[in-house]
Amino acid sequence: MRTPAPGPPTPVGSSGDSGRREAVSPRWIAGVDIGGTNLRVGLVPRAGGPPVEVRRERTRPEGGAGRVVERTAAMLRDAVAGAGAAAGSVAGVGVGVPGTVDHGAGIVRETPNLGWRDLPLRDLVGEATGLPAVLENDANCAAYGEWWQGAGRGAERLVGLTLGTGVGGGIVIGGEIYRGASGAAGEVGHMSVDFAGRPCACGSLGCVEAYASGPGIASRAADALPGGDGSLPGGIASGGGAPVTARTVCEAAAAGDARASRILAGAARVLGVAVANLVNLLNPDVIVIAGGVAAAGDRLFGPLGREVGRRAFPSAMEACRIVPAELPETAGVIGAAGVFRQSTCGHV
Amino acid sequence: MRTPAPGPPTPVGSSGDSGRREAVSPRWIAGVDIGGTNLRVGLVPRAGGPPVEVRRERTRPEGGAGRVVERTAAMLRDAVAGAGAAAGSVAGVGVGVPGTVDHGAGIVRETPNLGWRDLPLRDLVGEATGLPAVLENDANCAAYGEWWQGAGRGAERLVGLTLGTGVGGGIVIGGEIYRGASGAAGEVGHMSVDFAGRPCACGSLGCVEAYASGPGIASRAADALPGGDGSLPGGIASGGGAPVTARTVCEAAAAGDARASRILAGAARVLGVAVANLVNLLNPDVIVIAGGVAAAGDRLFGPLGREVGRRAFPSAMEACRIVPAELPETAGVIGAAGVFRQSTCGHV
Repeated sequence: MRTPAPGPPTPVGSSGDSGRREAVSPRWIAGVDIGGTNLRVGLVPRAGGPPVEVRRERTRPEGGAGRVVERTAAMLRDAVAGAGAAAGSVAGVGVGVPGTVDHGAGIVRETPNLGWRDLPLRDLVGEATGLPAVLENDANCAAYGEWWQGAGRGAERLVGLTLGTGVGGGIVIGGEIYRGASGAAGEVGHMSVDFAGRPCACGSLGCVEAYASGPGIASRAADALPGGDGSLPGGIASGGGAPVTARTVCEAAAAGDARASRILAGAARVLGVAVANLVNLLNPDVIVIAGGVAAAGDRLFGPLGREVGRRAFPSAMEACRIVPAELPETAGVIGAAGVFRQSTCGHV
Repeated sequence: MRTPAPGPPTPVGSSGDSGRREAVSPRWIAGVDIGGTNLRVGLVPRAGGPPVEVRRERTRPEGGAGRVVERTAAMLRDAVAGAGAAAGSVAGVGVGVPGTVDHGAGIVRETPNLGWRDLPLRDLVGEATGLPAVLENDANCAAYGEWWQGAGRGAERLVGLTLGTGVGGGIVIGGEIYRGASGAAGEVGHMSVDFAGRPCACGSLGCVEAYASGPGIASRAADALPGGDGSLPGGIASGGGAPVTARTVCEAAAAGDARASRILAGAARVLGVAVANLVNLLNPDVIVIAGGVAAAGDRLFGPLGREVGRRAFPSAMEACRIVPAELPETAGVIGAAGVFRQSTCGHV
């Protein structure tokens, strides 16, 4: 990995000698996915197709936003070098971050996972890379990635859900991210489906996130344990005394543990209530479900689908596919690049 | 009221003598609101403004769809005559009906309140009136009416709720009704906010309609009565032994009855959960609440707003006005006319 040179940054995709630069139609768009844990950078063909030269590092936000931006630019230079990309071949960069984003102003309003507030990240990335940049919420990027190249390719109306530390959501209508009046739209995870139910970190009660996120599933498993100490001697927990996570619940369910299967099915049913609400409200063509728990396959989609069937209007349900994501690792990178592409009306 | 003449219908707004017809730029659009109880027809200026010559009759669907269509055409001819409108001055007619509508095909798929199924109502009205017609769901019409001329005038993103026998909903984005993949979008009333809660007529549990519709409020009041017989000796009920309705609950609350106030506030809080979900999901500029119960004013909007405040994201909540409808009697007529106007791209 190259470290960024001191002084003014070298524009990404430039030879560094503008006198020798040839006119090259930009072939790539850079996608950057800044997660609470991982930082991913890749080059996405602007005509579509999987990203190349994907780089992944730990995000390490504790070093400060400036350092994350520098490392992002360095990863991008490395990816461009790896691709042997010509000068001018990268049209721009799309950046996805968890939290509240002002897309128009290019500012991260608040991102609890990274600790940033009112950060002009679009311009910081633009300056560090020498490329035009756009900024977008990460769940919107993931939904857009699945719309552009994944399980919801070209759907007129798509809702994307990502089951992770939280439950993220994004809405794509007519090929554009639906951002709402203040850029806050798509918070499916904070739809209450149980108004007097479990407390959610957001301050509400009964949010789907409190049931179907990784921690939501893990806490339900921990509650179900005889000792109530968050660990299991066998069955759900993969190792003796290890803390229960959504992953251990999924693994135990896959191995035939009945209690783990019941817990996973319970989360799936609550998710199904939220999905039924989305079907009745938005009548989408496709709902794409991503995230680690989505890998549970039929153990998730079976009870989820049956719950939707019990609750949604038949005419809306028949019009809607409910499918696992196709781009579990790269939807964020692809979607961020796609958002840049869309922001230039596809003419990049 | 004129009865329709036998034989081929006289085109509405025509002198009946095409040789004498003058070229008149159409000034009006007819709006028709076919409700389960009332049938309303009016003339809406295509440039905007309140409807004139509004006619209202009981719908009387038991006479059959053909008879309702005939009476609609007769009411429209009467309205045109009342307005002294010139030949060719009515551009077309928009028709709103409760139930599932295929807007593109102009067919009523199913309307439980009227008992119609797969009825080509658009063409029936078109033939009976001699005018081009469009068909739309009534809750969508009400939302569109409030967007065009009411409490949500010109909002980029509007959600309309109508509290009545059910809880209807409509979504207007970018000046267009959001219909979804199969025309079923906007069913806010069948958003479950209490997944193991009250049974709803739709087959789901905990739908907001089961709590905040007129019958939902009345049944809660009946449940709260000592005798459990659906009537009250005093307080909530206005007359001894009369069945409790949402109206009597609202009237008793207005008169200071504490139990009625609590019941109304409870319905308002459940509605507030649904509104908070809408705020978090769609981040709209305005949510307009119509229907008889909306007339309860602060007794509804107070607890509703506090519940939204407890649950919705601040940035989304700050961007959203939650307001009573401004067109309680005529939103359906205005909206139906507006849908016709929009279907012709405003060039009528």
